[in-house]
Formats: sequence, C-alpha cells, structure tokens
Amino acid sequence: MNTYSDDSFTLHTDLYQINMAETYWRDHVHEHRAVFEVYFRKLPFGNGYGVFAGLERILQYIQQFRFSDSDLAFLKEELGYDPEFINYLRTVSFTGNITSMVEGELVFANEPILRIEAPLIEAQLIETAVLNIVNYHTLIATKASRIKQVVGTDVVMEFGTRRAQELDAAIWGTRAAYIGGFEATSNVRAAKLFGIPVAGTHAHSMVQTYRDDYTAFKKYASVHKECVFLVDTYDTLKSGVPAAIKVAQELGDAIHFKGIRLDSGDLAYLSKAARKMLDDAGFHHTKIIASNDLDEYTIHHLKSQGARIDTWGIGTKVITAFDQPALGAVYKLVSIEENGKMTDTIKISGNPEKVSTPGLKHVYRIINMVNKKSEGDYIALDEERPEKEERLKMFHPTHTYISKFVTNFEAKKLQVDVVKNGTVVYQLPSLLSSQRYAKDNLDLLWDEYKRTMNPEEYPVDLSQKCWNNKMACITEVQEKVQKTIEKMT
Amino acid sequence: MNTYSDDSFTLHTDLYQINMAETYWRDHVHEHRAVFEVYFRKLPFGNGYGVFAGLERILQYIQQFRFSDSDLAFLKEELGYDPEFINYLRTVSFTGNITSMVEGELVFANEPILRIEAPLIEAQLIETAVLNIVNYHTLIATKASRIKQVVGTDVVMEFGTRRAQELDAAIWGTRAAYIGGFEATSNVRAAKLFGIPVAGTHAHSMVQTYRDDYTAFKKYASVHKECVFLVDTYDTLKSGVPAAIKVAQELGDAIHFKGIRLDSGDLAYLSKAARKMLDDAGFHHTKIIASNDLDEYTIHHLKSQGARIDTWGIGTKVITAFDQPALGAVYKLVSIEENGKMTDTIKISGNPEKVSTPGLKHVYRIINMVNKKSEGDYIALDEERPEKEERLKMFHPTHTYISKFVTNFEAKKLQVDVVKNGTVVYQLPSLLSSQRYAKDNLDLLWDEYKRTMNPEEYPVDLSQKCWNNKMACITEVQEKVQKTIEKMT
Repeated sequence: MNTYSDDSFTLHTDLYQINMAETYWRDHVHEHRAVFEVYFRKLPFGNGYGVFAGLERILQYIQQFRFSDSDLAFLKEELGYDPEFINYLRTVSFTGNITSMVEGELVFANEPILRIEAPLIEAQLIETAVLNIVNYHTLIATKASRIKQVVGTDVVMEFGTRRAQELDAAIWGTRAAYIGGFEATSNVRAAKLFGIPVAGTHAHSMVQTYRDDYTAFKKYASVHKECVFLVDTYDTLKSGVPAAIKVAQELGDAIHFKGIRLDSGDLAYLSKAARKMLDDAGFHHTKIIASNDLDEYTIHHLKSQGARIDTWGIGTKVITAFDQPALGAVYKLVSIEENGKMTDTIKISGNPEKVSTPGLKHVYRIINMVNKKSEGDYIALDEERPEKEERLKMFHPTHTYISKFVTNFEAKKLQVDVVKNGTVVYQLPSLLSSQRYAKDNLDLLWDEYKRTMNPEEYPVDLSQKCWNNKMACITEVQEKVQKTIEKMT
Repeated sequence: MNTYSDDSFTLHTDLYQINMAETYWRDHVHEHRAVFEVYFRKLPFGNGYGVFAGLERILQYIQQFRFSDSDLAFLKEELGYDPEFINYLRTVSFTGNITSMVEGELVFANEPILRIEAPLIEAQLIETAVLNIVNYHTLIATKASRIKQVVGTDVVMEFGTRRAQELDAAIWGTRAAYIGGFEATSNVRAAKLFGIPVAGTHAHSMVQTYRDDYTAFKKYASVHKECVFLVDTYDTLKSGVPAAIKVAQELGDAIHFKGIRLDSGDLAYLSKAARKMLDDAGFHHTKIIASNDLDEYTIHHLKSQGARIDTWGIGTKVITAFDQPALGAVYKLVSIEENGKMTDTIKISGNPEKVSTPGLKHVYRIINMVNKKSEGDYIALDEERPEKEERLKMFHPTHTYISKFVTNFEAKKLQVDVVKNGTVVYQLPSLLSSQRYAKDNLDLLWDEYKRTMNPEEYPVDLSQKCWNNKMACITEVQEKVQKTIEKMT
C-alpha cells in the first residue's frame, strides 16, 4: 500500500467521472448548472418501505471535498492527465446546493432522496461516493427497521462487527441499524464515535480458559457487577445454566444477575427450558439473550414457537443485509443548463422501470388529517404548491386509471436544505432523535405497508404536471434521437 | 459524530473483549500465553476453494494497536472502567507472534489461516478486528477468483464502488478482487493506494448532457485519445453503435477506438449484433465491454449463448459477494498456559462441525511430485515433520475409513512468520505477485475442485497425532464437565 500524509476521499470515485470532467472542462460546459437526483427503483428485501440514512457521512464527505497534492500528483504523473486540467482541479471544491431527506425518513422507490444542484463538473465528481454512502446506510437502516418490526418491544442489539464488510461498514452499519430501531451495539468504537449504547460480556474462550462454566462465571462475577453469562460452551442445560444459577445464588446481591446468553442449539427449546430453570431458582428478572445467525425470519418463527427470549443479538444478517446486500440507488441527471437556461433531461431505456423522471421536483407525504395516516407520496414540480391545494388527484404513474381524490390533508415536504452554495446549513439531530423520527413516522403507515411478507404497495405518485412533463420529454428525446439517426445514415 | 484527533482502531472491538480483558487482568492471568487460530468452517458460494486475502490490512492494524488517550478516556468516563485497569491498558500493545498464510494462498475449510500466539489479553483484544478483515478480504478474493474461472482469458474489471458496503469495502474489496484475478478497478483511490490498473470512460449522463450519442462521443473523442463509448443511453443498435462508428470513422487515427460498452438490454443479442456492425465497418479490434449486474452465472450463460463480449465489468456481485455476503471465519483458543505449561483446549458443541481442533498445528499442502497436483492438505502438530516422512497416511477426519497413503510428495508448509514479538517481520510482495501466486497455485488443483458448480471436496486431513490429540481432549473435557456438574448438584 502506498501511504500519503494527505490522502483524501476525493479520488474515491470512478475513473469515468474524471474523464467526463476533463471533457466538460475542455468544452467549457463544466460550470453549467446541473441537477441530479438520487433514488432507488426497488425496495430491498421485498419490504414495504425504506429508512433513509447516511446524511451525516455525506455532509462530512462534501465538506472535505478537495483534491490533495498527492491526488493531483497521481492523476498527473501516473494517469497522465493534462497539467492544465490538473491546475484547474486544484481549484475545485463543492459549491452547489443539496436538499435531502432527513435521516430516519421513510423512503419509497422512485422518489428523490437527495437532490444535487451544482456546476456540472462538481455534481459529477461526487456521484460515486454519495451513492456508495446512501446505498449502504439506507440498506442497513431498512434491514434493521424490518427486524425491529418483528422483534416488537423486545430489545435488539447489533453484534456483527466480525462479519461486516471491512471496518467502515461495521461502524457506519451499526449507526444505521440504530436509526432503524436497534437499541445497542457491541462495537466499542461505534459507541465512542456515535454515542450508541454498547453491550457485551464474555466469549466462549473465557470459559475455555477457565476450563469450566462455574469457574469462569465466578471469575467474571468477581470483577463485574452486571453479569450476563454465556452458557453454551459445553452443555447449555446440564452445565451452563446450572453454573450461572449457582454463581448467582452464591454471590447474592454482590452481582446483578442480568441475563444468560444462548448462542447455539435449538433456541426455542433451550430458552423455554432455561426460563423454567431460572424461574424455579427464583431468578424471574434474569433475561434470556439469544444470538446465532438470527434475522427477521428466524425471530418470527422462534416467537411463534413460544421461545422465551427477551433480547436479540443480531450479527451477520443485519450488518451485511445478508439476503440482499446491496441497494441500487442511482444518480440521474434531471435538468441541465443549455444556452443559459435550464432544460429538463431524461434517460430512456428498453426497461420501462429504468426511465428517469425529468425536472426539478419535491416529494410530499400526503397525510390524511382525519385518521392521521398517509395517503401516499406525491412528487410535484418545484413550481407547484400541493400544500395549498384543497383537493389533490393522486394517480398511479404507470397504471394511470388507478386514482383517487384526497381532501383534508397535510402535504409534508420531505426534503430540507442541507448544503447551500457549498456550505453545510443543516444541523444534524441526535442519533436518538433520528431513531425516534423513523419510529414516529412508521405510525403514519397502515400495517399493510409494514408487514415483512408481501406488503401492500405504498403509492408514490407524480403530480399531473410532473407526469405531463415526463411524457413531453420522452416524445422530445425520441424525436431528437430519430433525427440524429436519420442524419447519420 | 464525536470527532477525536487521536481516534484509533483499538476500540474497533466487541465490548466483551474489554470485559474479558479486565477479568483476566484482575485475576493475574492476562499475561498467560494463549494460542488462537483463525479458520472458517465452510467455503462460501459452494466453491471448491477459497483465496486468502487481508494480511496487509491486518499487519497495519497490529502495528498501530495501542489505546489512544481518547480511547482510554471513553472507557473510563463513559463506560466506567476502573482507573487502575485504564492505566494498565495504556501500556498494552501487541507483543506476540503471528504466523499466517500469504495473500493469494488457496485455503479450505477447517484449516488455520492465521495463528496468534500472545499474552491472553492481547490475543483477545485483537480478535474482532482480525476477523472483520479476514472475513471480508477472503470472501471477495474467493468470489473474484470464482468469477475469473468462468471468464477465462477475457479481461474482467471491478466496477462496484457505488454498491460497496461503505468506503473501506470499496477500496479493500477491489484490492482483494485483484488478488483473486481481476485485472482492473474503476476506483481511482484504489489505483492510487494499491497501484491497481484503473479503467473507465464516461456515463449515460454525458450523453444526456450533450443530448445525443454522436455529439457526446465526438466531444469525448476531442479530449481523449483512448475511446470506449457507452452506447445504450437511448437506443443501442439504432443510435449508440452507429454514432460510435461514425465518430471513429470521422476521426480516423486521431483516436484509438478501443471499445464500446453495453450496460443494459439483452447482452447476448446486442453483443452479437454490435460485433457484426463493428466488423462490417472494419473495426475488428474494437472490443465489446459488458456490464449490468453480471456474475459467474450470467457470464457462463452469456458465453454459452455465443455472446461476443471481450471484457467484463463486474460491480455489485463481486464487491458485496452478493450471493453470500459474509464469510464465517472464527477465532478459537487452541492452547493456553496453565500452571506454567501450555495445555491444549477445545470447544465442544452440539453441532459436530463446531467442535474445534486443539493444539499448535501447521498446515501442509501435499503435492504429488509425479503429476504436480495436490493430494490435499494435511494438518499436523508443531512437533511433527511431515516433509521428512517417506509415506503419509491421509484420512478423512470424520469418516476415517476414507484414507490413502501418499509417497513421493512435497509437503509445503503454508504458514509463514509475519509478526515476531510484536514486530512485523514479513515483507509483503507486490499485489501482482499475490495475484500470480493464487493463479499458479490453482494449477496444483484438479479441475474437479475448481468447477463453480458442485465441485469435488478437497481433502483437509488431520495427522494421526493431531486426530488422537483431539479425541483425547474431547474425552478429557467431557469428563471434566461431568465432574463439575456432579459437584454443582
């Protein structure tokens, strides 16, 4: 590994961004105003909603966005870029505007999460890192929220560092899981950096070191007042649980016998048997903590089998979003300055779901003021003011006959200004507030959107103007492409 | 996020490691010599072999392993650890020995990849981070190698940064993919840090910016001599490919018309049709590059359909190891100092595959000197010298009747010393050497172990002594546990 004292994240981008940047700069269009939107086309895990996270990391990244000397030297000397272009890059920072949903916001397919409005070259250079961040953070917050739906009021903790995809994922992943509703992490550095509650007691190796459960627990209890004993190193019901009870009985109120942890075997059976042993010994308040490759599916089944588990430790399945380890958020150009004025642009595709929606837009959550439930999200052009309408027509953007009229509603605008002229203008709330925000917003959703299996599709509609604009752009592009084809042949 | 000028990775660990550390320290056993091994129990993706990666990152981590002032302040003030213990932690660094396989080594289930021999407390504190690194790097190197098996002599490039699980994964993942056999990355910072070749030209947004393919390609070609045109923004065969050809014809040798890139649609059909158009125009050397959620399965099918693709760009599926995004390497205590001498330890489990193999061991690859193919791996105790044996009995560690005698072999020891008394003593080879090492070692394996579907199981055997030692440990532990149970009741 080459090490640099001035290494930056500015080169954390795809090479094509630099090549496009050079093209634009040479062509003198690099400072043309461009607007990009970040959105994903499909919710992960078949879930009915997503939970946005990653804004803190994005703002960090934007603030530090400058090519360092070693970045520029690399581009020039190793990749052979034009020295004049390198001199120009030396002056580049992010000077544009960003609006974004707040962390913990519920988000659905095809709605803009972030909007980047900046000189074309800047907007392009930050694309890769912004997507890298949004995709992972949002994926994990969504997975965590999904697990929390099944866990209910039990406590759920993130234990996945050792299985995370490298160090950053462990740290930022557990932060995202916390926003999604997890209560604690095992990662001490995450606790230090983010103030997340941290949990953990001892491993199997401690029992191996002391050769038997009883000795190990006794040693642990002589140093730590709060005791959770891991009882499955040799034999859970014959050795682990009896040893934990014996130590607790011997030490009385010198310790707080907080719990036992099961990490292997049949958790339904073992938890019920262990609960009985603890209750019979009078330890009714001692909790049972379970772990071992758990996710929303296994938890659902354990609960339906009457498992007596109070607290859930989730590792691999949440920190990697195991059943779908990537979210496909994209970064699409929706408007660009042309001859001094902004023109909406569209990306056409043979795959209908890949056609983008042009224009500068905002997303509104349409909340029914009678039942306080959301009627769906409504994407309108900047110039529109749905909050001032008496009556909204909401219709499906593809199957347009599916429509309804909504009255007596609040239209809540979901994006806020976070960066203005390159300066961060948004004050991040505490992480706990973001967690609560997500939780409170879930109350706006009917249960049908929240179930983990086959949820009902939440409406994400375009305003009539926005829809018309899209159709007009499609026609215009098709005609333009046809003309170019004719000119070429 | 709380920021610290002296933030370190030392707290990148599970809380239970700190709690165990405190227990050991109070009990004055923290400096007892302990030996842990890192291994996984099951190969990922149903693959027949793994490719080890991550050593560079581990050595970096080990060298910086010290609690910083802010780490200690956090443990003391926020988590309430005993100030005396904090003072002790201030003195802790890694002073032990590590032996490891080299990067690019082929690795199989249940064989020690790394061995950590150190004061108990140090070995315990580094566990979480070491696993975090080994698991991800090895997973990605293995996935990349698997994809490379299917790609054959075609070029394959890593394009996954935007879908990676946070920033570290993008960087270290593409490095691991390179060791596994990938030829290039799109990530500029990875190129800067690791010297990996970097590739990329332009995105759909550039075609949108210039409104049509022809204008966009022409602009790009006026700045860049090496041209790969992305041809699927509007209509691949009607607009994209003809525009690319027209630009190349107009500019002649002012550019090098290196390739076109297909990123959507039916890649089999489009690549064949585009190949014909390129050939008809005389561009026989212009390559076709394909991307769009590719992995070893889609590539296999595209090839069997006669797709004319020369170069493959792989994103999500390699950088997240999409179909199995976590490797389950564990860190198990195999020997511990007790009353001044080392005693082997074992972890028993109701799940037979979770029983560990006690004792200090080495892994040897047994290479048949006649056909230069590997007969399997052989795990022997430290005191054994299989390289000096005339004849080896190799037998399956569970189904012991499956056995063979091997003569005329080389027993190649797979671990090397990388850290001695806390000092890194291993000189990392170049990344290209590691890639070549993996490739050369694959030649030692029969094809039956390398096929991507239902590969034959490669033998990983224990020496007779090692096997006997394991059986003795099981008996001893079971008796000991039984005695403790009897004492408790």
